Amino acid sequence: MRTTTGWQSNAEGTFALDRVTIERRDLRDDDIAVRVDYCGVCHSDLHRIQNLFGEGLLVPGHEFTGTVTEAGPAVTGLAPGDRVAVGTIVDSCGACPMCEAGQQNYCYEGPTTTYGGTDRVDGTPTRGAYSGEYVLRGTFAHRLPDALDPAAAAPLMCAGITMWEPLRTAGIGPGSRVAVAGLGGLGHLGVKLAAALGAEVTVLSRTAGKADDARRLGAADVLTADRYESPEARGRFDLVLDTVPAPHDFGPYLHMAALDGTVAVLGYPLPATVQIMDLIHGRKKLTSSGTGGLRHTAELLEFCAEHGIAADVEVLPSARVADALARLSKGDVRYRFVLDLADLADLPGPARAAA
Amino acid sequence: MRTTTGWQSNAEGTFALDRVTIERRDLRDDDIAVRVDYCGVCHSDLHRIQNLFGEGLLVPGHEFTGTVTEAGPAVTGLAPGDRVAVGTIVDSCGACPMCEAGQQNYCYEGPTTTYGGTDRVDGTPTRGAYSGEYVLRGTFAHRLPDALDPAAAAPLMCAGITMWEPLRTAGIGPGSRVAVAGLGGLGHLGVKLAAALGAEVTVLSRTAGKADDARRLGAADVLTADRYESPEARGRFDLVLDTVPAPHDFGPYLHMAALDGTVAVLGYPLPATVQIMDLIHGRKKLTSSGTGGLRHTAELLEFCAEHGIAADVEVLPSARVADALARLSKGDVRYRFVLDLADLADLPGPARAAA
Repeated sequence: MRTTTGWQSNAEGTFALDRVTIERRDLRDDDIAVRVDYCGVCHSDLHRIQNLFGEGLLVPGHEFTGTVTEAGPAVTGLAPGDRVAVGTIVDSCGACPMCEAGQQNYCYEGPTTTYGGTDRVDGTPTRGAYSGEYVLRGTFAHRLPDALDPAAAAPLMCAGITMWEPLRTAGIGPGSRVAVAGLGGLGHLGVKLAAALGAEVTVLSRTAGKADDARRLGAADVLTADRYESPEARGRFDLVLDTVPAPHDFGPYLHMAALDGTVAVLGYPLPATVQIMDLIHGRKKLTSSGTGGLRHTAELLEFCAEHGIAADVEVLPSARVADALARLSKGDVRYRFVLDLADLADLPGPARAAA
Repeated sequence: MRTTTGWQSNAEGTFALDRVTIERRDLRDDDIAVRVDYCGVCHSDLHRIQNLFGEGLLVPGHEFTGTVTEAGPAVTGLAPGDRVAVGTIVDSCGACPMCEAGQQNYCYEGPTTTYGGTDRVDGTPTRGAYSGEYVLRGTFAHRLPDALDPAAAAPLMCAGITMWEPLRTAGIGPGSRVAVAGLGGLGHLGVKLAAALGAEVTVLSRTAGKADDARRLGAADVLTADRYESPEARGRFDLVLDTVPAPHDFGPYLHMAALDGTVAVLGYPLPATVQIMDLIHGRKKLTSSGTGGLRHTAELLEFCAEHGIAADVEVLPSARVADALARLSKGDVRYRFVLDLADLADLPGPARAAA
């Protein structure tokens, strides 16, 4: 067993995480050890820290980049010194139809999540990348393309792939009309990716406050909520990427979807009421998806390297994790916090992050 | 103004319809008059007779075949003596994107429904084809292919097209795996059409009672409800045509949908709760649609003529409409009642149908 330092949620569910010593497993033959360099702060980290999912104490972090420090003898294609990127899952059964399709995120046996999960070999809980080191099967790490900045690339591994899969599976390309509802960590990458795919992108926003940003990110237009029901908006989009992280009505988005258009619900995966009549008129589709499999993730990283796409990030030393969480909870970030884990090497023993 | 005889719902909402004299408009330049020969009895007729939609008294009937008796001077392609088929809509704005796409059923101004609607020229209420004659714009009547029996073809115009559009828009063909939930008026045509398109068809049924019928209609397999959650059923179908005409959980059908598979809700268009998590795992789509536009309907009739497909019908004289409705309300029909309107010519004056 080896140890590292991580930021762990506390029993009160506040954002003042505790700096603790955590264990990492000794490398198996197909494992790599990764020095975590940068880890994005995802909205789902907030939810889980606040114990909405009831897992108790955990070390969050599931979109990170780092450097390989060791590789087991069965690892191929990665060696110490290589830059890698890791997302929300670190293992899967490898044998079911979903794994065979490269969609390990939908593994029939349940993928092993990067934190809050259970290792499928030894049964230990997985702890995330708000930490100095991560150990995982080498096949679940992606080589980080040289062209990508490691801090700005980290959010591609959750926020980015969450946008990429629905864009790709809807066949978005030149001539497509894509709307992005909600301009946050997910949405800002949705705009960049859809625009780079050649689509005409419109940002749907409650207010006009982010209009300049939307255009800078690649949007051709911004539609504010008072215009969602207008004739010009009706049936306008082939795909609506709905990243709104709170309960809301899908009706206006379905109204704006074109004949055979799709509304992909990506920000709030809880039970919802849908008016079937909103689907009938125009034969519209409501769908959802959750992060991505290895195949799409590899494709995304290549695409981002080729098109110079990464997240707009605000990088903070990991000791400021509580600030990042508190500000994220208020939507005060453009557009993703990324923790720089380098400070862990210099920090003294266990302690609580300043709230 | 001209008159004909029709079967009209009563204020009590019972199935004992009243035989009444109704008015039909004098022909406009682009109108045809059609002697109604056969009219299918649709499940939605039941709902509306029972005043679920609050329209009051109405003459139902929106899937019929008949013979042109007169044609206005601007009508092209149809002449007296021609056999025609008419479905659920008889007019639309003709100018919106949906009409331009041949999807008049989704007309932005609202299509004119065959009954219970309002004529867009003179504002009179539309009355359906449980009647001796219908007058409509010629462009909303389809020529009935010679190969099709007029009684068995009538249900193609609502039940049939309701199955055809989702099959076509999902790209179903050889190698596709289609499930049909509910083997009634819609479902039995769904099985025939999907099989004729080359798909492998499975009927999903609460019980095994209709297994022989399902196979006779073209299904390769029947899955009873106790097996919906089984490993063999998981992710098995590219498309589930859900024709169940009562409130139900979509979860089991979504479970059986494959990666990127679709569940099309076609039998019960009321608000429903959907578990977004059921959509996430496998990136599944929930959709719906309502009958069809002129383009798809013309295509359906050609396809049915070519493949010898029509509904399995039980034909009753129109005076037995109350029997048909009562038995349909108990699911006692394999698989569609069709009224033969020829008896209206011989019946005496206004009266109530025997209950």
